[in-house]
Amino acid sequence: MLALFNDIKDEMQVVEEELKAVVQARYPLLTETSTHLLNAGGKRLRPALVLFGAKFYNFDLKKVLPLAVAMELIHMASLVHDDVVDASMTRRGIPTVKAMWGNSISIHIGSYLFAKSLILIAKYKDTPLVSNVLSNTSVKMCEGEIQQISFSFDINQSLKDYFYRIKCKTALLIAASTQLGAVACSAPESIHLPLRRYGYYIGMAFQVIDDILDMVADQNQLGKPIGGDLRQGIITLPVIFALTCCKQRDRLMGLVCKVEKTEDEVQEALMIIKECGAIEQSFEIAKKYIAKAKKELKVLPDIPTRLTLSLAADFVGIRKF
Amino acid sequence: MLALFNDIKDEMQVVEEELKAVVQARYPLLTETSTHLLNAGGKRLRPALVLFGAKFYNFDLKKVLPLAVAMELIHMASLVHDDVVDASMTRRGIPTVKAMWGNSISIHIGSYLFAKSLILIAKYKDTPLVSNVLSNTSVKMCEGEIQQISFSFDINQSLKDYFYRIKCKTALLIAASTQLGAVACSAPESIHLPLRRYGYYIGMAFQVIDDILDMVADQNQLGKPIGGDLRQGIITLPVIFALTCCKQRDRLMGLVCKVEKTEDEVQEALMIIKECGAIEQSFEIAKKYIAKAKKELKVLPDIPTRLTLSLAADFVGIRKF
Repeated sequence: MLALFNDIKDEMQVVEEELKAVVQARYPLLTETSTHLLNAGGKRLRPALVLFGAKFYNFDLKKVLPLAVAMELIHMASLVHDDVVDASMTRRGIPTVKAMWGNSISIHIGSYLFAKSLILIAKYKDTPLVSNVLSNTSVKMCEGEIQQISFSFDINQSLKDYFYRIKCKTALLIAASTQLGAVACSAPESIHLPLRRYGYYIGMAFQVIDDILDMVADQNQLGKPIGGDLRQGIITLPVIFALTCCKQRDRLMGLVCKVEKTEDEVQEALMIIKECGAIEQSFEIAKKYIAKAKKELKVLPDIPTRLTLSLAADFVGIRKF
Repeated sequence: MLALFNDIKDEMQVVEEELKAVVQARYPLLTETSTHLLNAGGKRLRPALVLFGAKFYNFDLKKVLPLAVAMELIHMASLVHDDVVDASMTRRGIPTVKAMWGNSISIHIGSYLFAKSLILIAKYKDTPLVSNVLSNTSVKMCEGEIQQISFSFDINQSLKDYFYRIKCKTALLIAASTQLGAVACSAPESIHLPLRRYGYYIGMAFQVIDDILDMVADQNQLGKPIGGDLRQGIITLPVIFALTCCKQRDRLMGLVCKVEKTEDEVQEALMIIKECGAIEQSFEIAKKYIAKAKKELKVLPDIPTRLTLSLAADFVGIRKF
């Protein structure tokens, strides 16, 4: 567990047990695949953010537990489906469900975990904002993924397209986590809206950093091969920056558009991107989002969790995995 | 449109327009794939059943429209995912989304349509039964599909396994359609529970007939090749009956278990199943479900829709496509 989660260690343990309980099913195959997914780890960032959000207003674990678990299930569901789409064989250094059980099982397991989250969300019948936010977020998450496929290997995409995509893919679910944690404990807008914006900004920073790490991380720490986005034709922030400023623009353009790249071509593209300063430029964007996130915290009650969230924002900026 | 839907012709037109409106999206690819799906037809059985259910208690189109549309979206979402799993290239004689746009797009389009249904379902915040029933139904639908994959080519499955599977795969969503149509118009249990049971029984009959048609239908009318289930190793009611009673049991067992069957072997298996009377035995089961469905109608108010639902039950038993 991340050291940042020390304040909510006991609650996170309950979340973990509840996650395990919720995926128990009639068929061994279902329990086995879901348990594999749970054991494959993950930072449990979204449940933690739900709990942190809830700390700002009449915290009650009973009230937020189903939501915290639901958030991780939605996230896991999207990862399982993404692994089919990206044909990923490992994630966090561990074989994916796709690698172990194939596409068909993965599709249904993803939908199963998502449907399980709906049962938990249905408990919030007195707080309609929960299902409103999450249904809209789910639609946007799919839109983001579909935009990513439509725009793959297509260099005619703008910064705006990129930011809209990472908002849909990543930031909205993180925003929902911090916001709805507070909503589940009946917090007023003056609390849950700044929390939502905080979550949104760290979510944006999180994905920008993710896209940077895909180019510069230590492969072993990342748990998957470097340059995956380039290979798949996903055009991320460093590529967009490099295409606007670098001297070898034409060469990079050719490499990025190429559908079947050799390993040398991937490495060459990575080199061009790194040399022109596009990585640093992207880091600057992430830093700006982190600063914006921390600014939102200022209007919130000055409880210890506020400092934790500030440190969490910093962590997003320095993480290496 | 089915002649049976004449009484609700105008309302079904509104459902159709709303379906088209709901799938309009920011990205042409999304609108295009969803519109392809809508235009590929389908009987719109579930929305019709929602409307019929609602007719039994203070019918109000405004109240049931989002639900009727949501039901078709959930159904479409499951078909798109199933076509990936089954690697189906045509459905109702028209190329599938999988065939035209590939697996990745299909996975996200399926999830997108499902997520869109959640936005519609979130409108029923004053009727928590709607989201309760639908979240549980969604989990069961995935369970049914996963059971089907786990048990493929496995002849050690009982009638009970088969009936549980088709309940999950098919009957529960049809049961939810008839029930929740009434629920959305605030009908009491004395109305919506018999409607649910009616839907459940015709749903069971519907899937049994579907499994029979996969073996005996006219290929052109069915819109897909005959014997698909056998090829995929899906063991349906006629196979289970044939394995219990027919003289060529051992030969059939060998054929059914074989993962890569030749076309001759598929035809031989079909022949054995047809000759031993297993098709007729399966029809008897479907008929029993239809009788049970019609019996449920007796406790409902004697409005014209009651006769329509009785005819609808009969239609399930005689349909050829």
